[in-house]
Amino acid sequence: MGPTIGVFDSGFGGLTVLRALLPLIPGARYLYLGDTARLPYGSKSRETIARYAVSSAKFLLEQGAEHLVVACNTATALALDEIKAALPIGVTGVIEPGAAAAARGVGDGSEGHVLVLATAATVQSGAYTRAIGAHGMAVTERACPLLVPLVEEGWLDASAETAAVTAEVLRIYLASAQKDAPGATTLLLGCTHYPLLTPMIEATLDRLNYPLAMVDAAQATAEAVGAHFPRSAKGRIEGTSMHFFATDSVEKFRRLGSRFLGQGLERVELIDLGG
Amino acid sequence: MGPTIGVFDSGFGGLTVLRALLPLIPGARYLYLGDTARLPYGSKSRETIARYAVSSAKFLLEQGAEHLVVACNTATALALDEIKAALPIGVTGVIEPGAAAAARGVGDGSEGHVLVLATAATVQSGAYTRAIGAHGMAVTERACPLLVPLVEEGWLDASAETAAVTAEVLRIYLASAQKDAPGATTLLLGCTHYPLLTPMIEATLDRLNYPLAMVDAAQATAEAVGAHFPRSAKGRIEGTSMHFFATDSVEKFRRLGSRFLGQGLERVELIDLGG
Repeated sequence: MGPTIGVFDSGFGGLTVLRALLPLIPGARYLYLGDTARLPYGSKSRETIARYAVSSAKFLLEQGAEHLVVACNTATALALDEIKAALPIGVTGVIEPGAAAAARGVGDGSEGHVLVLATAATVQSGAYTRAIGAHGMAVTERACPLLVPLVEEGWLDASAETAAVTAEVLRIYLASAQKDAPGATTLLLGCTHYPLLTPMIEATLDRLNYPLAMVDAAQATAEAVGAHFPRSAKGRIEGTSMHFFATDSVEKFRRLGSRFLGQGLERVELIDLGG
Repeated sequence: MGPTIGVFDSGFGGLTVLRALLPLIPGARYLYLGDTARLPYGSKSRETIARYAVSSAKFLLEQGAEHLVVACNTATALALDEIKAALPIGVTGVIEPGAAAAARGVGDGSEGHVLVLATAATVQSGAYTRAIGAHGMAVTERACPLLVPLVEEGWLDASAETAAVTAEVLRIYLASAQKDAPGATTLLLGCTHYPLLTPMIEATLDRLNYPLAMVDAAQATAEAVGAHFPRSAKGRIEGTSMHFFATDSVEKFRRLGSRFLGQGLERVELIDLGG
């Protein structure tokens, strides 16, 4: 039997990290908690986010998690130290793996300049500026508060008039970033909701003639988690199990979650974290 | 000295109701609570919303409120009965006054058909359909999940490219409503964030050739509250005091709140409702 791995996010976005974990650590028992009753974290203060994140992490520990993945940029940015201090197991956040992947992508890193798109709280924390700066690269961060609601509304279909709105919002955010950071080389999506926008982001960068290499932070995070587990600890993909917990509507979690995971969600359980 | 009136919302939108109350009940001591740490309510389940709303209402009672205004459509739609049962004081929600105002606007009401724009949770509750139906009018409800984030992002300035995005989102929502309810006569904004969009909504209705009369639910709610207080209980406008409580960032509350109240917010205090 493989290890028990807890994955935590404020909502659905962390399912993109779980999706990347499945082939890398087959045979694991995955416990995913979406703290949907209290989302979005992105517009809240550090104290509030830390309190929510620690209670969520402890829940997964009680359920048997042997390693915790904080698959939420906002919680990683504002509460990773608090979560690590509160838990006696290994904890992996999404920011450092993303920053390291951006540095690897640039090669020697000497000329790298990373543009980070993220929620307001993540940007205000400065966590990406510190993490990427530690790899010797320049950083420009841009808060994009409308992207999470657009993804949750499902305005992503490239053919529809609704997708034109999402494309225009992306153009406004990226054109403003291009003004601030015309020499950027690399784009890091600093929110786990954003990977669903990847094709539209690439099209927008083309139209703006703003050639940035995109980093897959979900993949980088999954690889960082995989490094904690020797080959012998891994099982067969058929032995993989997934159990989902949500703090709000199970029906909504199932419906939106399948978009992020790329497959249906079977076992979804409503829990109360007292918030 | 005037009465102490508690006004509660999940965030800032209820300040549009407070703004309408100020000239109607001068000399009152206003206590406003924005449960910003747990917003938005609009995407949460009934159980979660009721739990949050009752704890917020009790806080205002403890602070001395003699009457409570639930200045949040979602909380009114999903938790008004629970709040009334939990509090020994008068409670006024925003839905019934809005529905009554829509009926008055139509005259005898026999030909009225009201289009309600609101959050997903409010629409799912069916509360407007019941309240407006009780006045003998037809109702069509439309969920508009992007409007609150657009207002909070401040994409409202008629001259900017960002406002063009908001205008296009409004066009998509209203054109879809027009298909469902071509014969509607009246538009009710079923979310206290939406009054900031009024000029853009009016322009969109013109462009769509969709002539709806708009109801001011904030004003209607303020008048319903005013009816609870005899003239003798009212004081002088110079004696009015306002005290604001927020469950998250005081700075953000002050900054966004002034847009809704139409004036600066002086006394804003951070409180913890344990959520």
